[in-house]
Parts: sequence; structure tokens; C-alpha cells
Amino acid sequence: MQNVQFYQDAFTLHLEGFIKDREPVSLYSPINYILQLGGKRLRPVLTLMTAEIFNSDYNKALDAALSIEVFHNFSLVHDDIMDDAPLRRGNQTVHEKWNINTGILSGDAMLIMAYQLFEYYEPKTFQALAKLFSKTALEVCEGQQYDVDFETCSDVAIADYLKMIEYKTAVLVGAAMKMGAIVANASVEDQDSIYEFGKNLGIAFQLQDDYLDVFGNPKTFGKQVGGDIIENKKTYLYLKALEFSNETDKLQLTQLFSSNPEDLSTKINTIKQIFVSSGSAEATKEAIQEYTHKAFGVLKTINISEDKKALLQAFGNNLMNRSV
Amino acid sequence: MQNVQFYQDAFTLHLEGFIKDREPVSLYSPINYILQLGGKRLRPVLTLMTAEIFNSDYNKALDAALSIEVFHNFSLVHDDIMDDAPLRRGNQTVHEKWNINTGILSGDAMLIMAYQLFEYYEPKTFQALAKLFSKTALEVCEGQQYDVDFETCSDVAIADYLKMIEYKTAVLVGAAMKMGAIVANASVEDQDSIYEFGKNLGIAFQLQDDYLDVFGNPKTFGKQVGGDIIENKKTYLYLKALEFSNETDKLQLTQLFSSNPEDLSTKINTIKQIFVSSGSAEATKEAIQEYTHKAFGVLKTINISEDKKALLQAFGNNLMNRSV
Repeated sequence: MQNVQFYQDAFTLHLEGFIKDREPVSLYSPINYILQLGGKRLRPVLTLMTAEIFNSDYNKALDAALSIEVFHNFSLVHDDIMDDAPLRRGNQTVHEKWNINTGILSGDAMLIMAYQLFEYYEPKTFQALAKLFSKTALEVCEGQQYDVDFETCSDVAIADYLKMIEYKTAVLVGAAMKMGAIVANASVEDQDSIYEFGKNLGIAFQLQDDYLDVFGNPKTFGKQVGGDIIENKKTYLYLKALEFSNETDKLQLTQLFSSNPEDLSTKINTIKQIFVSSGSAEATKEAIQEYTHKAFGVLKTINISEDKKALLQAFGNNLMNRSV
Repeated sequence: MQNVQFYQDAFTLHLEGFIKDREPVSLYSPINYILQLGGKRLRPVLTLMTAEIFNSDYNKALDAALSIEVFHNFSLVHDDIMDDAPLRRGNQTVHEKWNINTGILSGDAMLIMAYQLFEYYEPKTFQALAKLFSKTALEVCEGQQYDVDFETCSDVAIADYLKMIEYKTAVLVGAAMKMGAIVANASVEDQDSIYEFGKNLGIAFQLQDDYLDVFGNPKTFGKQVGGDIIENKKTYLYLKALEFSNETDKLQLTQLFSSNPEDLSTKINTIKQIFVSSGSAEATKEAIQEYTHKAFGVLKTINISEDKKALLQAFGNNLMNRSV
């Protein structure tokens, strides 16, 4: 087993080999652009790590890891069009730098290229990887659609919100790890367990993202703190605050969440206070704990050495201890 | 072997079984909508026919045929967004009936669902089908990108135009047939030959489409005759006319092809005359013949009975004898 940095470097090298000058340039240069914008490469690193956790060589998992990263970037390109987002990782989004049609078509090509990366595996592994990939990719689409639907829905249930973040974000983390286990020929039980570990950690991570978006340290959070509030996003914090509020507070909250005032800091501070006073902030922290513990609970059942379990737990803790 | 109507009916029945009320409704109802708009179902019928040509039961090929049709409709949904097309088969396009974001996301889901349909096959067949599918799908994207690029390119070479229609249209016809051969466990040589047969017939068909768009019978052509001229589309007819023209005629033609006059019929008739007088109309007919003969030439080399060859040839002739 190696450290995260090692797997990041190995992945970056493999990615560089994948970047080629293909034709038509107008189709492939946006793909090369988005793939080289960087990011933490969290998902592919998890694939490589998991392959080694299950006693395989990480080299065998490089193409599966790359497939996950290409898919993740495909979803960013198409989501950025849907969200009309100008920036991604501090750079222009693909549809801004080129145009919407290029964003659609280059995204489509990336989705296909993600499948092609499984072709290096023998038929049985190929089928297992592609099946998991299709199921996951379809769930990611469904999660994105739920997210879009929720924007215009006045009563989003907490359970539906959790399903949305599970599909939109968490299943891909689970799948990234399960792919490492598949490549390593782990038992089906262990494959499913590591998937559950990743999925629950993914849910915890996304809930923490909701939390940090409001209560995070502007210096270290990376995104604009208060961004979700400005965009009136129905996050876990908001939905829990609604649940805990009496009719008067509920009315104030829904009114604030349909406003776009010029004075943003007053809006942000008022809502922040409601999140704290209603108990929603505390409930969100508890939910993060709950899903993290669920992940660690599944980890105990996996047939790997205690050392490796400790390593995965440390990775999880590290992920969940992002500075607030 | 059965007639085309039989395979169409069998396919329609299989498609109906595939249409389900899945959630989120906002993601899946556009998919059900476009899949049920009809069309000739030419590609899936070819998959079923080819499976039987190679001594398999068409039932075994139904999921591969459905995959081809789902992919074809995915490409229609995304292309219609890019072309800003209001109508598809006389009905509203998906992005018109819903919105662009729905068109993007439902299209993405269809591309994934097309892959999922291979999961019913055992690993080796699955891999063969998925590999062919990915290669073909990527070529279709490349063809679409070339088509977009050509709109703003002043000197499109004939060879590049042929490559564009090969990728955008013809490879999918070839792949539809090859999938039938794969499911039927035909030899690799026969798989490749039937692919070449379908591809060349596909190119001939697309060239014929260019021809009929100008010289077709308005009563039977289905689309608006002269549509390509109105849209200043650089078709085979146009590119060949340019090639055959002296500098003066070339100038007139390029000027006409950058105009959008109110009096369309004069523009259409002038260009029609140039296509005839330059020899471009005749050259296009010859190219159609050439690719059709190429297809029939490959057919001769395939290890199937003369009866079956005659049947495929009749199908090809039927396709190429659309009333003009």
C-alpha cells in the first residue's frame, strides 16, 4: 500500500498517456481541456487504493480508475451546461470556452470513452465493470434530474433529498471503490461491502459539503461560503430547519428562500441563525456522524487485515475532517 | 427468414415491453416519448434479419436491435438540440416539448440504457457487442462534429464529406447488421463483410438522400424538397458542382449558397439547374451506384446461401429504389 500522493501521481501519469491529439480537434480538445483542469482525483485514487487493499497491483486498476474520472468529468461538462455555470475549478467551463453544442457533443463522446476503457479487461471483468458502470451512471443521471426537479418543488421530503445526494454523488464513490475490488477479484460480498463503505462515506461527505457551505471557513473551503443560501438551494440544512420550525418560522424561512436581496450578508446571517436556533445545524452534524459510522461499521465486516481497515478508516477520517 | 413487416412487428412488441414508467418521471417520460414516435425501425430490423441470415433465431437479437434503436434515438434527441430543430417525425422535438436540459439529460440516460441492453448476453458476446457499439457511437459523434465544422468551413473536400456521412450515418447501419452476426456467432470474416455491406449501403442511402432532397418527388419524399438548398447545406451535390465549375460558376454558386432570399423557388430552381448543367447531379447518381455495387460486391464473399444473398440484395435494391 502506498500513500494518497503516490496514487495521485500514478493516476496523473496514466491520464497524460490518455490525452491524445485526436480528430476532429473541435470534439477532442474540449475533452483534453476538462480532463487536465485538475481536481483532487479522489475517485480514481479510491479505485487504485481499493485494488491494492484487495491484494492486486494498482496498475491493473488504472484503466478502471480513468473510466471513473472520465465519467465524472462528462457529468461536470453536462451539469455545467444545465446549471449555466461559467466557472469550473477556477477556469471557464467547456460550454463557456466553446459553446453549448460542443459541451453536449464532447460530453457524449466522454461517456462513450469511459466505457471503452473497460475494453482492456477480459470479458468477465469487462462485463462486471460495465454493468456496475451503467447502473451507477444511470443513477447519477436520475440524481441530477431529482436535483433539477427539487428546484421547483415546494415540499421536498428529507428521504428524497438523501436519495438525491446518494444518486448524484455517493454511488459514484461506492462504484469507484467496487471497481478496484472487481479488478482485484475480491469476493462478491467484499465487493458489495466496499461499495456500501464508499457510498455511505459519499453521503456523509456531501452532507458535510452542505454544512461547510454555510459554516465553513472561507479561507479553506474552496467555494464561496453562503453560496447555497444565495442560490436558495434546498439543502439538508434548509429541509431540517423547515422540519423543526413552527408555522411562523417556516413562513419566514420559505420567504427568505424565495428572495434575492441586494444585501446578501444580512440574508446569509439571518438564515445561519435560523439553522443554528432551529437545531438544524446540530441535526446535520449528527447525520454526517451517522453516515460516517455506518461506513466504518461496514468496513469491519470486510475480509481484509486490520492494518488495511485502519488505513481506510484513516482515509475516511481525513476526508471528513476537512477544516471548517 | 421472414419479411420486413414481420421483423418490424416483432421489434415493436419488444420495444413496448421496454417502455416502463420509471422514476423520476421527468427523466424517463421524454425517453418513452421519443421511442414511441415511430419511424421505419430500419436499423433494428436489419439486426434481426442479419441474425437469421446467419442461422440464429431473431429473438436472440432483440435486445441488440433495441440497443441500436435506443442509441439512434439518443443521437436524434441531442442532434435536434444542436440543430435547434422544432419537429421530429411531425411531432415536437424533446427539447421543444420539455426544455434543453431535459433533452441533454434524457439523451445521456438513453446512451447508458443502450449499453445496458447488452447485459442479457453472456460475457464474450457482451464484450463484442459493447466494443462495436462504443467504436460506432464515437464515430457517430465525430461525424456529427464534422457536420457542424463543415457549416463554417469554406472548402470542404469531397473525401472529408464522404467520411462525414460514413461516420454520421453509415457506420450505424453496418454496426446494426454486424450485431446480428455477432449474436448469431458468425465467423469474424462474415461479421466484417456484413458490416462493410451495411456501411456501403448506408453511404449510398445518404447520398441518395442528398439527391432526393433536390430532385425527389415532393409527394413521396417525406421531407421538404429543396430543404438542403434553403439551409445552404454543403451536400455532395453542392461540393461536386463546385468541383466541376469554372471560376465564374463557382462564384455564383458560393454566392447563392450564402444567401437567404425571400423568393426561395427562384434560388432552388437556379441551383437545381447548376447541379444538372455542371454534371454534379449525374456524378451523384454515379456515386450512389458505386457504393451500392460495392455493397453488393462484398455480399458475394459472405458464407451464406445464394437465396439469402438474393434476399439481402433485394432489400438493398428496395431501399435504393425509393420513388424519386
